[in-house]
Amino acid sequence: MAQIIESIPNISEGRDLEIVERIVDAVRETKGCKLLDYSSDPNHNRSVITYIGDAAAVEEASVEIAKRAAKLIDLTKHTGEHPRMGAVDVMPFVPITGSTVQDCVDLSRRVGKRIAQEADMPVFLYEYSASADNRKNLSVIRKGQFEKMAEKVLEPEWEPDFGGRRIHPTAGVVAVGARPPLIAYNLNLDTDDVGIAKDIAKTVREKDGGFRCVKAMGFMLEDKGVAQVSMNLTDFTVTPVHVITEAVKKEAEKRGVRVTESELIGLCPLKALTDAASYYLGITDFDDAQVIENNIL
Amino acid sequence: MAQIIESIPNISEGRDLEIVERIVDAVRETKGCKLLDYSSDPNHNRSVITYIGDAAAVEEASVEIAKRAAKLIDLTKHTGEHPRMGAVDVMPFVPITGSTVQDCVDLSRRVGKRIAQEADMPVFLYEYSASADNRKNLSVIRKGQFEKMAEKVLEPEWEPDFGGRRIHPTAGVVAVGARPPLIAYNLNLDTDDVGIAKDIAKTVREKDGGFRCVKAMGFMLEDKGVAQVSMNLTDFTVTPVHVITEAVKKEAEKRGVRVTESELIGLCPLKALTDAASYYLGITDFDDAQVIENNIL
Repeated sequence: MAQIIESIPNISEGRDLEIVERIVDAVRETKGCKLLDYSSDPNHNRSVITYIGDAAAVEEASVEIAKRAAKLIDLTKHTGEHPRMGAVDVMPFVPITGSTVQDCVDLSRRVGKRIAQEADMPVFLYEYSASADNRKNLSVIRKGQFEKMAEKVLEPEWEPDFGGRRIHPTAGVVAVGARPPLIAYNLNLDTDDVGIAKDIAKTVREKDGGFRCVKAMGFMLEDKGVAQVSMNLTDFTVTPVHVITEAVKKEAEKRGVRVTESELIGLCPLKALTDAASYYLGITDFDDAQVIENNIL
Repeated sequence: MAQIIESIPNISEGRDLEIVERIVDAVRETKGCKLLDYSSDPNHNRSVITYIGDAAAVEEASVEIAKRAAKLIDLTKHTGEHPRMGAVDVMPFVPITGSTVQDCVDLSRRVGKRIAQEADMPVFLYEYSASADNRKNLSVIRKGQFEKMAEKVLEPEWEPDFGGRRIHPTAGVVAVGARPPLIAYNLNLDTDDVGIAKDIAKTVREKDGGFRCVKAMGFMLEDKGVAQVSMNLTDFTVTPVHVITEAVKKEAEKRGVRVTESELIGLCPLKALTDAASYYLGITDFDDAQVIENNIL
């Protein structure tokens, strides 16, 4: 089985698509990396790039992305809805096949060190790579955003893991770290009462005593005129997709509404879906090696 | 996406495991082929070998298997429960990724021609490769078995596709052809009344007006003391696993029993399971490219 690691850096440019292309080229030009997707959001003024490869190839592409972002993006002029602290804002590494979270932690340390040296941006290690508890959560690290970061890194507990206490004057700082695959998954209800979706979200999410590794919010889908429970499953091996689906269905029923459909946003690991298939079909003793393609990867 | 074709030849030896090993070595020794599985059944006196590779690698391994089987297996001395007509009895080619049924038809013709020349065994093309309607079904071709095959090939409609009308004196003839992936799938009932399983099988199988590409029989599982609907799904893109599962559940309910569990026997294509997951989770606009691993294959 080949080693496949995924990286999904977010860069703070979503309007000047020429700059985005030049940064995405860093992946296209790296042998052994495969660009899976990239998309830009002008309101957020932010782009998300997704690519895979073995650790060595992903390291090269990731460092090069940081170098180009630091050169081409000026955060002193950046506006957009999404909070941000760096030209490349966050760079997660995710184990897909033939690799572990620890492999990705090791990779994040190598990449972090090199970004500090080669792109001159200080680096915070976050999530599974975090050097302290208060650095696990990206939003805690990013609090204050680019504009307050020069002061923040001077505080005793906020020295960056690499690069010292002086932020890049135009590119800020970046968070680099390992995390499990994240599944963006929404369930739509047959109601236009967003309060019900918010209430269900609160019931099932970890923050309020619900399922572990589940983040959830209630939204109104204006175009469809229905309420939605929008979720991030941050570790599907802890709370599987089918478990949260059945839980939301049950909570919906309790409130007299029904789940009508689900949406899978972006990419999803194969195992999350074969686990769901095995659960619903009731397969006894299902083994991942029974999936022909798992023998090829 | 790499080209991956699967082959699952059945050889008429399931007792002398040294002979089986020497034949399986043909796969191990072929560069570009990966041996996925092999198993021997002494009652059937038959072994099933599963391997994958691109068309060129699978061609080499398959021809070599036929040559070794023809040399090492003597059907004039063969006894066993399973019907057979050749030392290598049947050799299907199945498209997995980056290949079509037509690629496998082309491969079966090349392999068939070479087996006739290099292993001296006449070849019938069957299933999607069949040259006539009465050659599509393996059991029709094999009728009369090894013992009657020398006479059968003299009949006007039974001249082999390659190799002429003279069978190999000890190795007989072989059927080679392309087919879609076959899924062996069983559903167990909460009853010991095998009549119910037989009745459900009859209702859902194609032969008796049920679902297309579904073969089904009712069995008694002696060890578990329950009745089972045992199925072969010969094309899951025509009748998906979840469709037949729900159909059998409904038929069981009508008869006052329940499906308690399912069994997936051997290998299964990824898409059969992601289709089931997408169906049960209710994912709108699911795209196979959302499965990360589908971008790697």
